Amino acid sequence: MVGLTLEQKAALVVGSGYWATVDAPGIPVVTMNDGPHGLRTQPNHGDNLGLGSSLPATCFPPATGLASSWDRDLIERVGRAIAEEAIEQGVDIVLGPGVNIKRSPLCGRNFEYFSEDPLLSGQLGGAWVRGVQSLGVGASLKHFAVNNQETARMTVSAEVDERTLREIYLPAFESVVIREKPWTVMCSYNRINGVAAAENHWLLTDLLRGEWGFDGLVVSDWGAVDQRVPALAAGLDLEMPGPQRDSTEAVVHAVLSGELDESVLDRAVERVRALAARAHPSPEAGDGPALLPPSASGSAHHALAREAAADSMVLLRNEGGLLPLDTNQPIAVIGEFARTPRFQGAGSSQVNPTRVDAALPALEALAPIEFAPGYSLDRRVDAGPLIREAVAVASRSSVALVFVGLPATEESEGFDRTSIDLPPAHVRLIREVAAVNPRTVVIVSNGGVVSLEPWHDDVPVILESWLLGQAGGAAIADVLFGRVAPSGRLAESIPFRLQDTPSYLNFPGENDVVRYGEGVFVGYRYFESAEVAVRYPFGFGLGYTTFESSDLRVTATRESVAATVTVTNTGSRAGKHVVQLYVSPAAAGVRRPVRELRGFEKVALEPGESAEVRFELDARAFAHWDTRTHDWLVPGGDYRIEIGDSAHDIALWTVVARRGPAPVELTMDSSVAQLLAHPVTGPIFARAVRGADDESAMGGSLFDMVATVPVRRLLRFPGVGDQMRHLPLLLRVANNPLVRTVAGWFDRRR
Amino acid sequence: MVGLTLEQKAALVVGSGYWATVDAPGIPVVTMNDGPHGLRTQPNHGDNLGLGSSLPATCFPPATGLASSWDRDLIERVGRAIAEEAIEQGVDIVLGPGVNIKRSPLCGRNFEYFSEDPLLSGQLGGAWVRGVQSLGVGASLKHFAVNNQETARMTVSAEVDERTLREIYLPAFESVVIREKPWTVMCSYNRINGVAAAENHWLLTDLLRGEWGFDGLVVSDWGAVDQRVPALAAGLDLEMPGPQRDSTEAVVHAVLSGELDESVLDRAVERVRALAARAHPSPEAGDGPALLPPSASGSAHHALAREAAADSMVLLRNEGGLLPLDTNQPIAVIGEFARTPRFQGAGSSQVNPTRVDAALPALEALAPIEFAPGYSLDRRVDAGPLIREAVAVASRSSVALVFVGLPATEESEGFDRTSIDLPPAHVRLIREVAAVNPRTVVIVSNGGVVSLEPWHDDVPVILESWLLGQAGGAAIADVLFGRVAPSGRLAESIPFRLQDTPSYLNFPGENDVVRYGEGVFVGYRYFESAEVAVRYPFGFGLGYTTFESSDLRVTATRESVAATVTVTNTGSRAGKHVVQLYVSPAAAGVRRPVRELRGFEKVALEPGESAEVRFELDARAFAHWDTRTHDWLVPGGDYRIEIGDSAHDIALWTVVARRGPAPVELTMDSSVAQLLAHPVTGPIFARAVRGADDESAMGGSLFDMVATVPVRRLLRFPGVGDQMRHLPLLLRVANNPLVRTVAGWFDRRR
Repeated sequence: MVGLTLEQKAALVVGSGYWATVDAPGIPVVTMNDGPHGLRTQPNHGDNLGLGSSLPATCFPPATGLASSWDRDLIERVGRAIAEEAIEQGVDIVLGPGVNIKRSPLCGRNFEYFSEDPLLSGQLGGAWVRGVQSLGVGASLKHFAVNNQETARMTVSAEVDERTLREIYLPAFESVVIREKPWTVMCSYNRINGVAAAENHWLLTDLLRGEWGFDGLVVSDWGAVDQRVPALAAGLDLEMPGPQRDSTEAVVHAVLSGELDESVLDRAVERVRALAARAHPSPEAGDGPALLPPSASGSAHHALAREAAADSMVLLRNEGGLLPLDTNQPIAVIGEFARTPRFQGAGSSQVNPTRVDAALPALEALAPIEFAPGYSLDRRVDAGPLIREAVAVASRSSVALVFVGLPATEESEGFDRTSIDLPPAHVRLIREVAAVNPRTVVIVSNGGVVSLEPWHDDVPVILESWLLGQAGGAAIADVLFGRVAPSGRLAESIPFRLQDTPSYLNFPGENDVVRYGEGVFVGYRYFESAEVAVRYPFGFGLGYTTFESSDLRVTATRESVAATVTVTNTGSRAGKHVVQLYVSPAAAGVRRPVRELRGFEKVALEPGESAEVRFELDARAFAHWDTRTHDWLVPGGDYRIEIGDSAHDIALWTVVARRGPAPVELTMDSSVAQLLAHPVTGPIFARAVRGADDESAMGGSLFDMVATVPVRRLLRFPGVGDQMRHLPLLLRVANNPLVRTVAGWFDRRR
Repeated sequence: MVGLTLEQKAALVVGSGYWATVDAPGIPVVTMNDGPHGLRTQPNHGDNLGLGSSLPATCFPPATGLASSWDRDLIERVGRAIAEEAIEQGVDIVLGPGVNIKRSPLCGRNFEYFSEDPLLSGQLGGAWVRGVQSLGVGASLKHFAVNNQETARMTVSAEVDERTLREIYLPAFESVVIREKPWTVMCSYNRINGVAAAENHWLLTDLLRGEWGFDGLVVSDWGAVDQRVPALAAGLDLEMPGPQRDSTEAVVHAVLSGELDESVLDRAVERVRALAARAHPSPEAGDGPALLPPSASGSAHHALAREAAADSMVLLRNEGGLLPLDTNQPIAVIGEFARTPRFQGAGSSQVNPTRVDAALPALEALAPIEFAPGYSLDRRVDAGPLIREAVAVASRSSVALVFVGLPATEESEGFDRTSIDLPPAHVRLIREVAAVNPRTVVIVSNGGVVSLEPWHDDVPVILESWLLGQAGGAAIADVLFGRVAPSGRLAESIPFRLQDTPSYLNFPGENDVVRYGEGVFVGYRYFESAEVAVRYPFGFGLGYTTFESSDLRVTATRESVAATVTVTNTGSRAGKHVVQLYVSPAAAGVRRPVRELRGFEKVALEPGESAEVRFELDARAFAHWDTRTHDWLVPGGDYRIEIGDSAHDIALWTVVARRGPAPVELTMDSSVAQLLAHPVTGPIFARAVRGADDESAMGGSLFDMVATVPVRRLLRFPGVGDQMRHLPLLLRVANNPLVRTVAGWFDRRR
């Protein structure tokens, strides 16, 4: 590393202040700022954790909203807009997206994450990265990895088995790293099976770089580095924020004492240098343009924020086709959130918006409106009089729009919720309004999932509006009055009760350990597999028209499967539909979810219009992670290819056969059942076992009783060993290459 | 070890044949035989695994039935009777009891186990050991440990966390070892967190002998030893069966090569010698009396088996008080099980009974009976005509008794069930009979729990008769006609669906690993904590009279709590009631079950009679296992002492306060919340944190966001460190002994 001293190099792998790298000879400063649904740029790069307000920036819908769009193109455009603002504000890297899985609805940061499903998370997070990086601004894929809660986030160890890691918690990262090549990956605060992410060589080096080919820089989450030297050795290139005198000194000392090979430090320095070069392709560019307020892009970005917000809402219930509303009727608008919207979550992602559209003025521009706040954002205010006023207003209106949701204090980075209930005052408001006005529309604002009980059946319309960013109010008006047809689909299941969720008794863990006891059965994978009813399933959402899927066709090669399906707008209005493809696995040696999302496409269709949607499914779409070979495995057998309107409602399905791997070699550790299953030697072995079986005086079938016993262990039973004396010879026959080939032809499970 | 060569010693730690130890100079042969609900003694000590029939012996109800009696005295008497037969048959050690926890209703061997609750399993298993050993016959406590399934039982690793081990899977063993001092403990086949039980030094030595003070002999389950030398080193004294030439040679070689210290072998030999001395207190006794058929004890034992069977049944439903039956009415007896009873499970515990009482002749002796088989035990027989015949019989009778249950082929040692449904033909029979006779009584015979759906509501009476041993048929008649009042209580929950059980998606594991993902939430601990409805809860059972609990009083000392409650027979018939005491824990740093069984007493009362029942609760009754200190911990706070008619129906409760341990020392690794909670230094620290909080521009409360962060990590945020410069001093103050004492007075959680 020409030109830098050891001390300079050690300083360079730690940040300078909150939002920048160290200024070193020939290495321009790289600036980073919070995202991901807009910028939180602190003037002068900020001098502290988050005190003092940030520059105005467009606040797009947080991931919880965007994800419900299931729209890669939309999200890519949002990413591009954010990159434009980053360029304007001199920001080199936007700290996002967060593609962690929503393991529990209680996670305080769920509003920053996309989905309970890894495919959807990876595809949508990837679209965001694509958009941001298309303009030469870097992304930071976070929080790597298994950071699914806020409680004890700096100390907790996520205890999660290998298969679950590979199938649920890693694939979104894997997909974004491989397809989109983010400039940086941000390691998380937590530990994984006891090892801190920041010090996890397997995670940051073996997996990320070795298996996935990542060639960017690994940055710590802010304050995630506890011991700089082990973190450096593990592959953590840049510690943030900085300076950290003890880190720098420890690195210098470790190199001088021989504890740390200087090449490890050099590698990290080289990555900082490479990142700087990427951020500043022309060396003269230096720190980029001076900080500017949002320019002409402002109004275009606000319009995009409005479009994104409209596509982020999920219409859950629309009894009697009450929506879209008619503009000529007197409408009651109830709920403080209509006037003072809740549109983003608290914490490092909080944007200082360029403007905020509340729903109330947007509605007033469209129809005769009477407003009542219904509740106060100040909890100390008695709800009684406000509710009575709201009921009075609702009773004299044609339709009542009730805006409810979670108060800002209930969800934030840094802590988890303990309930999924709406505030009692909101529930009471809904029920009392619905009692006087049967045409009640409930609009819910919330980052994490909320229960729709016990009031669900009281109201004909429920619009799940999540958090919608700064233009959400106008977008709500657009949707309610049919200027935009709702097209969102749930990116996470809405349970009846918190108790129904699979991590209920294992969240958020205890004594700094959280057991992922539900394994791969997260979200709909659990609800569908354990047959637990939910209020609304993953993938569900209504529109203002109807769609029909038909003509599902599958063509398979040895390597992949192509599926095509025709989708038709069978209603009378234009609309968008999300075609969801699930794979329902063949019987396997492991317990697999009933179905898993393996593809989706959003299509816009005019009334009567049809489109053919095509999916390409590679081997991974059929595979599970095999803990014996530490690799993906496609068990042979028949798989269902399903087209669903949700994870619970399958409209069409067909079957495709996949061939499994070659039969395993039989050994003395193979089980009796495995030996019996062998097409060639099995029948011979069966005669020996079944011969003994006839004489069993232990009541049951001796054969059934020993099916899972390794044959070697049978030899521990005097007498049995004699019957098995030909076993070694039998195994040699079974493992003969020619016999194995023949066996493969007859193996039903291939 | 005077007088024995190395080879002799190595041979002595492996059995001789299936059922005996090696005959060595000065060490009499010890004989062992299967149990536990009766003897399976193979003539001439048997020469193989289980082929050829065993000597006749009294078949008592298997543990699944006995456990429902909740009657320590009864089970102790059963144990004594079995010991009498063991003495008659020359058996030194009876291989039982099995105190493994019923983790899933699917476990094929659940019929050999007592309960889903560790206290109940330990108390009842202990009573059995007390009975057997009272006559100088040895018991073998099994299967040690965490052997909760049959699938892959010889290879599967039970992956279970430390707290769950200590609170759920070990306490029954602990209780029996400490209180009853069984002669032997039998290690299980499976692995525990990767280490085979047979080779598990922590299990067989550190825990069993070190912590629990076991001074008997550890014997392998038959065929459980894979590698004799590591097993010996781990504390596995005796490998069964034998001889195993490779084992003996490996031990000799290991001693000669220095790999194994000869003292380890000597210790095992000494334990074999000590066991032999215990089995043959007079050296001349040699092999004990010659094998004899059951003597005069036969009829007394059959009567005891009948008494035990009657007390093992659980009356689940008795709408309109249909039971007890009147002997003067024409009764339809339907179901082949009435004629050919299912009374025990298959496998090593299968007894060759001295006689078998079917229900049909017993009922015929009491009332006018018309019989129809309803189904055949041969599955190939068409059920249709048999059901039609049964319906005809039922329609012309005053009452229909329908005997249904699980066929013998569905549950056995060696494999697990895959469903909890009754055979479809049995379900159909119940429903068609109930359709023509509203006075239908269903008697269910089954080892593992079966679903009572979808027919439950169709019939007024359901008698869960489990497996009742050889006198079950007569006992059923006793109960149906009120000669004995039913007094059994469920020792395991009856769920609505298999899908509702907490291990549903984690049973029986895959690729030789089973994750105990539900942790401590097994059985009612899960159903009550996750608020999942069950058909009948743990502890439930009806009788022919009614009981009322009253006047619960608690007196507490620092070490223990005494609770007294008065129970009164408020009905018109004599009966027995099981008084169940549960403790509902105080809030703690860990998630605890809503309630746990901590005491029970069975009392017999005449109509109008009352009794006071007293419970002594030591610290363990309030403790959970703390993974930080690796010890039991009683968190300070208010605990509910509950008297329940089941785990779900609490009749009475009161509160008792427990004082927790001294406050922990605060360190730089303590969390912000822990520092704030300190009564003395907390307020000082609060001012610093809250001061910064007012200025937060991240939307949420900075204080809430950092509550679980270790204070040391705050120093990684430039600027924050300055505010924290007095922290080390503050910690010194907090940890001052005087301050800690004062703090303890004010700590609410103590």
